[in-house]
Amino acid sequence: MLISYEESLKILHSHIKSYERIEKIALTQCLGRILACDIKALKNQPEMETSAMDGYAIKFEDQDKALKILGTTPAGTMPQFEVTNGTCVKTFTGSLMSLGSDTLVPVENVRIEKDQIFIEKSVKKGFAVRKIGENYKKDEILLKKGTKLNYSEIALLAELGFFHISVFVKPIIGVLSSGSEIKDLGETLDNPAQIRSSNHIAIANLAKNLACDTRVFPLLKDDEKATLATLESALESCDILITTGGVSMGDFDFLKSAVKEYEIIIDKVDIKPGRHIKIAKANHKFIIALPGFPYSAMVMFNLYAREILNSWLCQEKDYITKAFLQGSYKKKTPYLEFVACNVEFKEGRILVNLEGKKEGSSAIINNLNHKAALMIVPKECEILENESLVDIVFMP
Amino acid sequence: MLISYEESLKILHSHIKSYERIEKIALTQCLGRILACDIKALKNQPEMETSAMDGYAIKFEDQDKALKILGTTPAGTMPQFEVTNGTCVKTFTGSLMSLGSDTLVPVENVRIEKDQIFIEKSVKKGFAVRKIGENYKKDEILLKKGTKLNYSEIALLAELGFFHISVFVKPIIGVLSSGSEIKDLGETLDNPAQIRSSNHIAIANLAKNLACDTRVFPLLKDDEKATLATLESALESCDILITTGGVSMGDFDFLKSAVKEYEIIIDKVDIKPGRHIKIAKANHKFIIALPGFPYSAMVMFNLYAREILNSWLCQEKDYITKAFLQGSYKKKTPYLEFVACNVEFKEGRILVNLEGKKEGSSAIINNLNHKAALMIVPKECEILENESLVDIVFMP
Repeated sequence: MLISYEESLKILHSHIKSYERIEKIALTQCLGRILACDIKALKNQPEMETSAMDGYAIKFEDQDKALKILGTTPAGTMPQFEVTNGTCVKTFTGSLMSLGSDTLVPVENVRIEKDQIFIEKSVKKGFAVRKIGENYKKDEILLKKGTKLNYSEIALLAELGFFHISVFVKPIIGVLSSGSEIKDLGETLDNPAQIRSSNHIAIANLAKNLACDTRVFPLLKDDEKATLATLESALESCDILITTGGVSMGDFDFLKSAVKEYEIIIDKVDIKPGRHIKIAKANHKFIIALPGFPYSAMVMFNLYAREILNSWLCQEKDYITKAFLQGSYKKKTPYLEFVACNVEFKEGRILVNLEGKKEGSSAIINNLNHKAALMIVPKECEILENESLVDIVFMP
Repeated sequence: MLISYEESLKILHSHIKSYERIEKIALTQCLGRILACDIKALKNQPEMETSAMDGYAIKFEDQDKALKILGTTPAGTMPQFEVTNGTCVKTFTGSLMSLGSDTLVPVENVRIEKDQIFIEKSVKKGFAVRKIGENYKKDEILLKKGTKLNYSEIALLAELGFFHISVFVKPIIGVLSSGSEIKDLGETLDNPAQIRSSNHIAIANLAKNLACDTRVFPLLKDDEKATLATLESALESCDILITTGGVSMGDFDFLKSAVKEYEIIIDKVDIKPGRHIKIAKANHKFIIALPGFPYSAMVMFNLYAREILNSWLCQEKDYITKAFLQGSYKKKTPYLEFVACNVEFKEGRILVNLEGKKEGSSAIINNLNHKAALMIVPKECEILENESLVDIVFMP
């Protein structure tokens, strides 16, 4: 009796320890990294009232008068003049407002005669004045631990004056692909029974998308003696070791027995693809033994390794959502299925379809191309009708 | 009279020349890069009939008989035996099917006695046999020029035997931020009128997200003499030069006049934020002069620089879609507006709301945090009601 997907996730979570590895890196290097602490505003922004346009700082009540220009406040300098009734200060975008002023009249609205301005088009009180704390107030929490740093979060950190940022150390994902039929990148195939390994590079790139470092280990041939030692050695260099191949029912599936030397926490799950998955624990590390078919391996990595990474890096599981199936889907297996699908945004709705997706084994890498997502087909289901609301999983 | 957004894009497109710069890079380095040619299957995959499970290769018609095991076909080796009536060959996941066989019976379905198998649970004809060309057929176009290479496309290229890939050379985005009030990362602020530059790092990271290289030039003070020379020199090192600040109505807006030394193709657009934008051409290069407020600069980069990059790198404009507004929005300006909004996927619908978005000037960087998108508020519109279907623009 295979355990269910939900049950397998429960078991997995019960074994995940917290991840407290933090490093400091330069702000210029932190695109895509995960913030390891909350970021709070140390002061109001702006700190003082600031002009949002080029114009004249005035008293609101003075708009019907000729106003004497006392001088200018270039951006970046402290105002040198106090605005009193009948006067104004030329003030630029980003300049501080002068003491005594409460409103900015844009240059477009005034006529200048000698050292005086006449306001030809009046504005509301406080026009174009950026209030103290407009962007954020002192002590406001601006970014939370677990935020994936993109362009605007990094810009905000720059504005706040940070240069050295606390981020989570990238977990290291090791990939050990096995199988006597697979040859590495750039190697010659000796006969039509051999294929090129793609799992190692697929998993490594998925891991990079999830803010991880990677170690791609040499391909492992189906060799009973070498397998356990290779596994042990690989595990030393990573936090989560992904193996591919060697876990099903074959005579040469030596990874299956090698993994069993560790504490197996999950052994087969009632899903397709990848039901032969095995997950073992080694202290705080994990070994995830995945099937050798590339589609299975990529999907299972996204379902299980990502689950661990989410916990470690404080990520929300926001990559699962609902969508409307276009066309119907007839289920072919008794398992919970994860089926590659195309996602389309149309008129405010999220649609999925299976156009161009090939039917066949889990060897079909190309089914995941072109930003494919996974449609979850429940175990107890024979057919999903057109327009069914289905669960989908985005790939990273 | 300002030109409309649509008009400005038309003008821009009329000036974009094709981008033919291609380089070859290692498959292990091409995550996120843009493919510069179509990729075609050079042969069928699989090339020969292949087993999808561990089991026995048989003739379908033989399932009710005792079948003599002739031997095994380990994965990666050429089959050594021909299956005739009354015989079978042990065959593993990924092994080639033996000549004469047409069906694979999984190990779970058979009982073994000495050198014979007895099939206890029969299967359909062709079961677990991967047909020739199941993944793809010879000459099928698998990836098109302009494909952004993610994990599965890279895995496919590995399977196809590619190691050195033709991708577009990354266009170089230069960023030249100006303003006497801005100080660089790590510099001390001398007074409360000074702020830290965030535009340069924001634009650089946006550019990285769009598969570009970046050059961040030293900050430019408001200095009339230095401006044109700095602009000329910066332009030498990049394909698109983004300047920020110095383009509005102030006395110190020297960038405005410096840019006018080039062929101005766009001078102000009827939009908010960023209506003071100027775009100039310099041979095949572009100068995009953006306002200094960070929200404006980030939004305008996404609207204009991305438009050029799309053309150069053969990208679809798939980051504009529709969504249902939650709550209403009252328009505050006479311009076409791009308003930062939160996007939520809910029950198959794409929703946007303005929760937590601060009202105020275009200085508010934090409005773009947390994966904000932009809601497009049409020019001729006073209020957008709750549940309006609005256009939105995803940021990269």
